[in-house]
Amino acid sequence: MFDYTATYTDLYQITMSQVYFHKGLQNETAIFDYFFRKLPFEGGYAIFAGLEDLIETIETLRFDEKDLKFLQSQGMDQAFLDYLKGFRFRGNIYASKEGDLMFPNRPVLTVEAPIIETQLIETLLLNILNYQSLIATKASRMRLAARDRKLVDFGLRRAPGTGGYSAARAAFIGGFDATSNVRAGRDYGIPVSGTMAHSFIQRYDTEIRAFRDFAKVRPHDCVLLVDTYNTLKSGVPNAIIVGKEMEKTGNRLKGIRLDSGDLAWLARESRKMLDDAGLDYVKIAASNQLDEKVIESLLNQNAPIDLFGVGTNLVTGQPDGALDGVYKLAYSNKEPRLKLSESIEKINLPGRKQVYRLLHPDGLFYGGEAVALTDETNFDIMHHPIDLHKSLPLGGFSKEPLLEKIVEKGKRLTAPKKLEEIADFSRKQLNKLPREYKRFENPHIYKIGLSATLKEERDRLVKEHKGKTG
Amino acid sequence: MFDYTATYTDLYQITMSQVYFHKGLQNETAIFDYFFRKLPFEGGYAIFAGLEDLIETIETLRFDEKDLKFLQSQGMDQAFLDYLKGFRFRGNIYASKEGDLMFPNRPVLTVEAPIIETQLIETLLLNILNYQSLIATKASRMRLAARDRKLVDFGLRRAPGTGGYSAARAAFIGGFDATSNVRAGRDYGIPVSGTMAHSFIQRYDTEIRAFRDFAKVRPHDCVLLVDTYNTLKSGVPNAIIVGKEMEKTGNRLKGIRLDSGDLAWLARESRKMLDDAGLDYVKIAASNQLDEKVIESLLNQNAPIDLFGVGTNLVTGQPDGALDGVYKLAYSNKEPRLKLSESIEKINLPGRKQVYRLLHPDGLFYGGEAVALTDETNFDIMHHPIDLHKSLPLGGFSKEPLLEKIVEKGKRLTAPKKLEEIADFSRKQLNKLPREYKRFENPHIYKIGLSATLKEERDRLVKEHKGKTG
Repeated sequence: MFDYTATYTDLYQITMSQVYFHKGLQNETAIFDYFFRKLPFEGGYAIFAGLEDLIETIETLRFDEKDLKFLQSQGMDQAFLDYLKGFRFRGNIYASKEGDLMFPNRPVLTVEAPIIETQLIETLLLNILNYQSLIATKASRMRLAARDRKLVDFGLRRAPGTGGYSAARAAFIGGFDATSNVRAGRDYGIPVSGTMAHSFIQRYDTEIRAFRDFAKVRPHDCVLLVDTYNTLKSGVPNAIIVGKEMEKTGNRLKGIRLDSGDLAWLARESRKMLDDAGLDYVKIAASNQLDEKVIESLLNQNAPIDLFGVGTNLVTGQPDGALDGVYKLAYSNKEPRLKLSESIEKINLPGRKQVYRLLHPDGLFYGGEAVALTDETNFDIMHHPIDLHKSLPLGGFSKEPLLEKIVEKGKRLTAPKKLEEIADFSRKQLNKLPREYKRFENPHIYKIGLSATLKEERDRLVKEHKGKTG
Repeated sequence: MFDYTATYTDLYQITMSQVYFHKGLQNETAIFDYFFRKLPFEGGYAIFAGLEDLIETIETLRFDEKDLKFLQSQGMDQAFLDYLKGFRFRGNIYASKEGDLMFPNRPVLTVEAPIIETQLIETLLLNILNYQSLIATKASRMRLAARDRKLVDFGLRRAPGTGGYSAARAAFIGGFDATSNVRAGRDYGIPVSGTMAHSFIQRYDTEIRAFRDFAKVRPHDCVLLVDTYNTLKSGVPNAIIVGKEMEKTGNRLKGIRLDSGDLAWLARESRKMLDDAGLDYVKIAASNQLDEKVIESLLNQNAPIDLFGVGTNLVTGQPDGALDGVYKLAYSNKEPRLKLSESIEKINLPGRKQVYRLLHPDGLFYGGEAVALTDETNFDIMHHPIDLHKSLPLGGFSKEPLLEKIVEKGKRLTAPKKLEEIADFSRKQLNKLPREYKRFENPHIYKIGLSATLKEERDRLVKEHKGKTG
């Protein structure tokens, strides 16, 4: 893992903190919300990921000696440096469960802490959550497209530097089965998977000698790459010979891998050849610039592919490249806060809030969530955030509160969750979302509404601000 | 920095190595070339970045105790684990200079080492070089667009996890002046830069109080964010008041920052207001979803912007998201190697090679490079890699060899280069490239040619392979 220190942040977090410190505001409580504005990939939902990594990092985040020396070289004064030396996060964090679905324009996570501490974790928080959530969402779309076939992350070589390490984790949360990334497997407990490269075949004078050597050394985990010379004329016939030889020693060829050409056609032809040779148990893996649309197309053509290896398009979160998650002040100096914007959609929600997911009596998702202030005990209608004429009575639903306190005074309240548990939870939640929200083309729009009290509070603050500056 | 260990790789590198080990091939020399096939961003050149980070990592790369324990749990045998325990890279590396321009389909870096070692560094090498080169190239385009204005990396919050750390380094090589990323500043010596966020203004009851507090604590580095309420009616007038107050105490307001709205118009209006108030020395910074095209457009409109802060589009390398760099076997088992492909463009070049850049007598780049085998002492013509009818006599050029031995038997031959030195070299090299290769729309195509001997060798091997596979 990266050796995070508290300088893993934007400089302005530190300069603002310096001002707060010298104005004696370091113990003033502030509240910030993490949320995003636009669903990635023109999809109907997103997956929240990165939380456990974030909490683990925040718990131990410190300015080390190198950090302090560097900041001193940047002209920070000694009193403030002494403060930073003692810095640790002592606030509270309320968050959605990692792996849960998340939707735009409602809090996903809320930080309540002394104002300097809220600022000093901001960049780190955005950096971890935005990227892992983007990749988990991308992975989840590939999982939907791939149905019950295996999905393996092959992305490290085209990944954005060490971002590839956390991409493997996020992909697993989104529904991937394994990764080629050994280090991520080691540290996160993700199953690792891998076969051979073209260079291995090229090392040998003939393809079959390469296959035989591999089968001898790895008889229990032998997947042969068949497209180095000619898939159907050389690769598959040689794999069949070696597969039959393996049977004689009581072993079984596990699979073949296609990495170029028309994957649907090659998979079908290879399947026939393998079946005709009595090797119907041999699996077919495919790779080469896959994404959810290509996987969907391959399976719509009934391509007999058992495993997809996905690289670039997974780890770079193409075509979006980033989730637009932001971290906005909702409360400070003992008052709710908002930031004006020319478009009302971009105005944030003031105060400390809870988010309630609307559930049908059978536990399935209705397709909407209501945001209210935390001290509202009851409300039975939610209002469209902008359109005055739209509202929804909440009588027929049960309301599940989504934000749970997970960090109190800087300490996590529950044991870290296992990655497998998070991935399992994510899959179950996605199953509860109606299919119309999961399709790739023009998915349904999930509704986010406000309680009457929250809406009035927001509108009151907007008016107050306009009075000030107009 | 990330604590790289030798499991920072794809599993198949280790499984292939296991086979080589048990076949007694661990000391057989192999040669791999790193190159890429397609220029990113539909541009006319790319910048080579990541080399110093790579060399530093390779020199100390080991399987640690956790790695070995994990691999044991994956069923690797003890003899092989013992070998891995002693693993270190003992080979040679020949490379282009970091920061130099690079072009498709010619070696950028060559690894010559015992075959297992060539495999065990492959994924790490691709991971570091592909991402940093992508970002350096993107940054270089922004540098061209921004002319002599300042460019600052604001990307960490939207960066792909810890990839954002190396993005700051790559951006500096590509021509950025500074980064907001404090940790990258600390470790790489990049100048750091930062001001204030909207939340800082929101903390206060009035904008001017926020400005005043900031100016008091940071009188020598005060850039005020002016768009929280209303840029021209509130932000700039308040900044002017504070600027005049600063003058009275012998200080100077350094700048204002625009972060929303029509940046060209707001910059022009703000400039006028500042100048009319006698604050012509106050700089104007702009940010908000910038990329090279937006920067170009702003400057074509003569927007008086002195500094651009760029985030998402820089660190995600949008719209490409990845450089397609590959690592291909060129020599093993005492013979040159190549990999067949259905398209001749994708067939790699066999043997150990040198790349020669063609220079005019004045040292400027002609716009082409010749690839030859290293043992060719002289050749006076280069051939198009595919088109039989195209060739170029080399009589009028001097030929600069680009690949230098930088690692010998696992040890670097020269001291690490400073980042500033690399960035400086990069800028000088880019200046030597004719402008037609640097424009964004339909740039000239840089020529890559082969010596007659290399071309014959490649064609001979293609024929030989086709014979083998029918």
